[in-house]
Amino acid sequence: MKAEKLILDGNRVAANMKEKLAGQINRLSEKGIVPCLATILVGDDPSSATYVRMKGNACKRLGIHSVRVDLPSNTTTYELIAAINKLNDDPNIHGILLQHPVPHPIDERAAFEAIRIDKDVDGVTTQGFAQNAFGFADYPSCTPAAIIGILEYYNIPIEGKHAVVIGRSPILGKPVSAMLLNKNATVTTCHSKTANLDNIVRLGDIVVAAVGKPKFVQGDWIKPGAIVVDAGYNKGNFGDVDYDACLKNAYAITPVPAGVGPVTIATLLKHTVEAAEKFGY
Amino acid sequence: MKAEKLILDGNRVAANMKEKLAGQINRLSEKGIVPCLATILVGDDPSSATYVRMKGNACKRLGIHSVRVDLPSNTTTYELIAAINKLNDDPNIHGILLQHPVPHPIDERAAFEAIRIDKDVDGVTTQGFAQNAFGFADYPSCTPAAIIGILEYYNIPIEGKHAVVIGRSPILGKPVSAMLLNKNATVTTCHSKTANLDNIVRLGDIVVAAVGKPKFVQGDWIKPGAIVVDAGYNKGNFGDVDYDACLKNAYAITPVPAGVGPVTIATLLKHTVEAAEKFGY
Repeated sequence: MKAEKLILDGNRVAANMKEKLAGQINRLSEKGIVPCLATILVGDDPSSATYVRMKGNACKRLGIHSVRVDLPSNTTTYELIAAINKLNDDPNIHGILLQHPVPHPIDERAAFEAIRIDKDVDGVTTQGFAQNAFGFADYPSCTPAAIIGILEYYNIPIEGKHAVVIGRSPILGKPVSAMLLNKNATVTTCHSKTANLDNIVRLGDIVVAAVGKPKFVQGDWIKPGAIVVDAGYNKGNFGDVDYDACLKNAYAITPVPAGVGPVTIATLLKHTVEAAEKFGY
Repeated sequence: MKAEKLILDGNRVAANMKEKLAGQINRLSEKGIVPCLATILVGDDPSSATYVRMKGNACKRLGIHSVRVDLPSNTTTYELIAAINKLNDDPNIHGILLQHPVPHPIDERAAFEAIRIDKDVDGVTTQGFAQNAFGFADYPSCTPAAIIGILEYYNIPIEGKHAVVIGRSPILGKPVSAMLLNKNATVTTCHSKTANLDNIVRLGDIVVAAVGKPKFVQGDWIKPGAIVVDAGYNKGNFGDVDYDACLKNAYAITPVPAGVGPVTIATLLKHTVEAAEKFGY
């Protein structure tokens, strides 16, 4: 008999979130407030342009305003920060998303830092990161928050479980490790210098792949019965996980697409609506 | 034949640090600058009073000014922040240390946040924490920095090693996990909800105990040849590690006292001197 598998359906989680958001947006509109997200795209990277467009479309469908700021690839750090400050000062803008990565000569960290904490709906500032690591952030980074959201939606226990996170970026591996830790998981964070990665991943009751390499996580790295969350998205619609191979051992798994991606966008909308609610009082 | 053991002598590491600091302090004094650390003690907890006194004495011995601010245990958050702001605004104060913990009714986080980032020599602000987690802090928390300092002084490799940290406090477990991760260790962070803690600790090439429980880490939890760092200090001069038992399996170990403690204080002095150097230019 084949063991039953649980496919963690990101579209379902996102739809559930958006249903709740629709009510919040209605209540705001009664007060004359329309939540508004500003997205900033610097340069002409096609993937980044796609992501920004998807975020704008998702806002539109839900009745959230979105303002798009497109800047040329030769924008200076100073000019980018000036653009961010304009959005910081605009009372009609509730959330600001600077699409990562920005072109290389720009000091991305300085640009992130320029975002006002109460508009930092993607948790990219140092202050937002640390508030999240300490467990009191209003807006944790969207992808990490989406991962926790999926696990919680499916009532997957986190407390006391061993979570193995592969990746340590400031907007994904590090904050998701912090959030799992705050949910009382024992957390191991791995990366390119990790020795015997397969053995470490095999310890995981929950495995989060945030590597940025297609089909990187192999099926036999997964402990039988583990939960696999694939936060990767690579060319050709591949995640960071070898889905079919990992599904064999996993109890539950997020597909790519329709896994973490849609919940990340729904989380961004949720944070924007919450920022508008705070602004409105 | 008994395997050779390495006792990681904190007094030796601290002495080495202070020797370098003496030169820096001399050069500052030629410019008419005396580094100055302000310590704030709220209430009358005897251990906290001892720590503050030790820090003040260590300053004195090295020719660093120290200003002690003693506040009664019924101090309000507002009054404490006002005291901190006074120190923030005083150009003669280069570093500010608020002794943890403050009495319960005070919002300690709000008080920590009030410390100017360029005077946050113990890395207690959210901004300081995140800068450290992202690898560009001027002043990481002193105990975590001391732990890294000891490992580096004794040329203990960190990259690619599995570090197991027991504890997840904002000023010890979390930042030391972050620093070990940035030094390319694979890092597992454990805590009171960790299942099978002994088995997890047994994975560690480097084990950091930051639990606050005397002799908590047992000898048979230590993988033969591991490095054991005891960041605990409990009544009766006990660390968080059962020293004699752990020494049997460990290759290297920090004693208590004369392990992490003196290096923590030396690190605080170092950060204060560095803050004075930055102020002086």
